[in-house]
Amino acid sequence: MDRFDFYSPTYFVFGDGRESETGAYVKKFGGSRVLLHFGSGSVIRSGLLERVSESLKKEGIPFFALGGVKPNPRDTLVYEGIELVAKENIDFIVAVGGGSAIDSAKAIALGSCYEGDFWDFWCGKAEPKKALPVATVLTIAAAGSEGSPSTVITKEEGGIKRGLTTDLVRPKFSVMNPALTETLPAYQTACGVTDIMAHVFERYFTNTKNVEMTDRLCEATLLTVINEAPKVIKNPNDYDARANIMWAGTVAHTDICGVGRSQDWNSHGLEHELSGLYDVAHGAGLAVVMPAWMEYVMNHDVMRFAQAANRIWGVSMDFEHPELTAKKGIKAFRTFLKSIGMPQNFSEIGALEADIPALVEKHPVSASGKVGGFMDLTPEDCANIYTLAAKGGTL
Amino acid sequence: MDRFDFYSPTYFVFGDGRESETGAYVKKFGGSRVLLHFGSGSVIRSGLLERVSESLKKEGIPFFALGGVKPNPRDTLVYEGIELVAKENIDFIVAVGGGSAIDSAKAIALGSCYEGDFWDFWCGKAEPKKALPVATVLTIAAAGSEGSPSTVITKEEGGIKRGLTTDLVRPKFSVMNPALTETLPAYQTACGVTDIMAHVFERYFTNTKNVEMTDRLCEATLLTVINEAPKVIKNPNDYDARANIMWAGTVAHTDICGVGRSQDWNSHGLEHELSGLYDVAHGAGLAVVMPAWMEYVMNHDVMRFAQAANRIWGVSMDFEHPELTAKKGIKAFRTFLKSIGMPQNFSEIGALEADIPALVEKHPVSASGKVGGFMDLTPEDCANIYTLAAKGGTL
Repeated sequence: MDRFDFYSPTYFVFGDGRESETGAYVKKFGGSRVLLHFGSGSVIRSGLLERVSESLKKEGIPFFALGGVKPNPRDTLVYEGIELVAKENIDFIVAVGGGSAIDSAKAIALGSCYEGDFWDFWCGKAEPKKALPVATVLTIAAAGSEGSPSTVITKEEGGIKRGLTTDLVRPKFSVMNPALTETLPAYQTACGVTDIMAHVFERYFTNTKNVEMTDRLCEATLLTVINEAPKVIKNPNDYDARANIMWAGTVAHTDICGVGRSQDWNSHGLEHELSGLYDVAHGAGLAVVMPAWMEYVMNHDVMRFAQAANRIWGVSMDFEHPELTAKKGIKAFRTFLKSIGMPQNFSEIGALEADIPALVEKHPVSASGKVGGFMDLTPEDCANIYTLAAKGGTL
Repeated sequence: MDRFDFYSPTYFVFGDGRESETGAYVKKFGGSRVLLHFGSGSVIRSGLLERVSESLKKEGIPFFALGGVKPNPRDTLVYEGIELVAKENIDFIVAVGGGSAIDSAKAIALGSCYEGDFWDFWCGKAEPKKALPVATVLTIAAAGSEGSPSTVITKEEGGIKRGLTTDLVRPKFSVMNPALTETLPAYQTACGVTDIMAHVFERYFTNTKNVEMTDRLCEATLLTVINEAPKVIKNPNDYDARANIMWAGTVAHTDICGVGRSQDWNSHGLEHELSGLYDVAHGAGLAVVMPAWMEYVMNHDVMRFAQAANRIWGVSMDFEHPELTAKKGIKAFRTFLKSIGMPQNFSEIGALEADIPALVEKHPVSASGKVGGFMDLTPEDCANIYTLAAKGGTL
C-alpha cells in the first residue's frame, strides 16, 4: 500500500426535506451574503429554489441568484458569477443542482479570490491559494462533486474541457435529499449511475498491490449501484433505492475508494474530448468509452480484471484462463449499461468515427506523447480505444 | 433509509515514517503549545516519542509530556492532564498511542475548557460546549478513536466505565503508520481486530430496511479484516496487511458503516461491565460477549443474520431454513475469533459466572429497566447473554 492523505471534511445533511435547513447550515459555516447558483428552470419549477431561498430568509441572510449553468459548465458563466460576487460583496456560494452547477460554483469561488483570469488555474498557469466557501444542495446523483475537491469547466472558445483538483473547493456542507432525484428522466438517472461506476472503476484498476481495503470499498459501492439502479429505472419513486445511489455517488468520489494506490483516469480523459466536441451527456460518453478502454488494457493485468469480474459481476473464477473471466466481466458491464438504457457505441451518441483523429489531437496525450495510468497510453493507443468504442467493442 | 448527518473532518496522514510530519501538521492546525499524552514506556523504548518530539522541535513548538495512560483509561490521569494544561498554557493535545491514550486526551481536551468536574459530561450532568484541538499518532489498530467523536473513560472509584460522543473531540489530524503496529504481540493485534469487527457488527444489526450502501460498506470492512488478520498473526511484519487492518479500523468507526439506520451497541455496553470489573482487554471481552449476544438476539430478524452469514462468511443461503444459515454465520465468527487466538468463554478471561448478577447490576439496564437496540434488552436478557457468554455459547 502506498502512503496517502485522506481528507473529506464536508458535512453531509442527508434525507427527505432537508433543503429547508440550508440557511441554518450557511449560518453555521459563517456565510452572510450568498450566491445561489443553479442551472435550468427545473429547480425553479420544482419549487426547490423557493424552499432554499425561504430557508435563507428565515436566517436573515441576503442572497443573489445566478442561473443558467449548462451541462459541461462554461467559462463564460463563471466570469459572470465572479463579477456578481464582487458587485454584491458575496461571501458564500450555494450551488443548487448537479455536478455542473457545483463545478461552476467552485470555479466562481476560486476566481473570486484571484486577481487574474480564473482559467489560469485550469490551464496550469497559476496555483489557487484561496477560495470562497462553497456548499451544495444536490439534485442528481452522479458527479460526486458534492464531496470532492474537483471541478471540470469547458472553455467555450475551442470546446476545451479541463479538470482541477484542490481542497480549497471541497464543499463545507452538502444537502442531499434523494427525493429530489425522483423526477429525473430515466436516461439522466442512468447517466448518473454510469458516472458513479466510472469514478469507482477508475480507482479500481491500479498497479499497486495489496490494497484490499480500498478494493473492497470499491466493490461495495459498485455492488450497491448494480443492485439499486434497476429498481429506480423500474420505479422512479423508490426512495430507498434513490438514497442508496445518491450516497454511493458521494462515497465513490471522496477518494475513500482510491486511497493507498495509483489510479487511472484515462476513461474520464478520453470521454472529456467526446463531450467537449459533441455535447453528449458525460455518463453516456463514459458508457461508450469505458468498456472499450477496459477491453484494450485488460491484458496489462488480467488477474485484476478477473478479480473484478468475480467479485463485482459474480463471474466464477477460471484460474487456468483468467482472461476468459476478465472478458466475461467486461461483457457483464456492457450488458448492465445496456439494461439501464445507456448507449453502446459512437452512432448512439451521434459521434463520428471520422472525428477520431480530431479527438486524439485535442487530448492532452498529443501534447505530451503519453498519458499515465494503469497502462500508459500513447496517441495511437487513444485512437485504438476510440475505434473500439466507436463499434461498441468486440466482446 | 433514515435521515442522517455524516461528518468526518479528520485529516489522515497515512504511511510508513509519517510521524516525522507531526510537528508540521500541529502547526497547520494552529497548535503552539502541545501536550504529548501517552501510555506505557513502549512509545519511549521504540523511539516513537523521540521522533514525534523532534518533529515538534523542528517547528519550534514547545511541548510537555504526560505518560502513564493505562488500558481502560482512568479519570485520575485525566485530572492530572487538565491541571498540566492549565499550568503550562497548552493549546493543542497530541495523543501518541492507541485508543486509551486518545480517549484520555479527548477527555483532557474537554475538561480543560470547563470550569466544573469533567466527569459531569460522562454522567450526563452537563453538555460539552468547547474542547482543545486533539490530534493522534496511532500505534494500534483497534478503537477507531483516531477518527471518531467518542471517548470512553473509567472512573477509578467503583470501576464505572462510560462513553461520550461529541464532534468537539474529533481529531484534527491522525498520523497512521502501520509499521508501528508490527511490534505488537499477536494477542493485542487480535484484540484490536475483534474490536474493529465489533464496531462494524454493532452497526450492521439494525431494524432499518433497505440501506444497501451501508450494508455493503460494513461487509467490505469485515471481509478485509477477515482476509488480512490471519496474515499478520502468521507474519507480524506484513506491512500491507497491517496497513489494511489499520485503515479498516478507522473506516469501521467514522460511522460511514452506520449511517442511515438504527444501530445496536449492546455488545459494547455488556463488555464495558466486564472490562470495568476484571480489567480484561476490551477486544477479548468482546470476543466472549458478542457471539453470545448474536446467538441470543438472532431470531429478532433471522434474515439479517442469514445475510451476514452469506455475504461475510460465505455460507450458502438456505432460504427454507434461514436460521440454519444464520447459526452457521455465528459459528464461523466464533471459529475465526478462536483462530486468531481470542478467548471463547468466561473462564478464559478470568471472569466468574457467579459475578453475573453484579455485572447486570452495574449495567445501565438496571437503572432504566431496558436498553434499546436491534432487540431491546431487559436486565433478564442481559443476564441470559452473560450466561451464554460464560459457557461460550451453544453453537
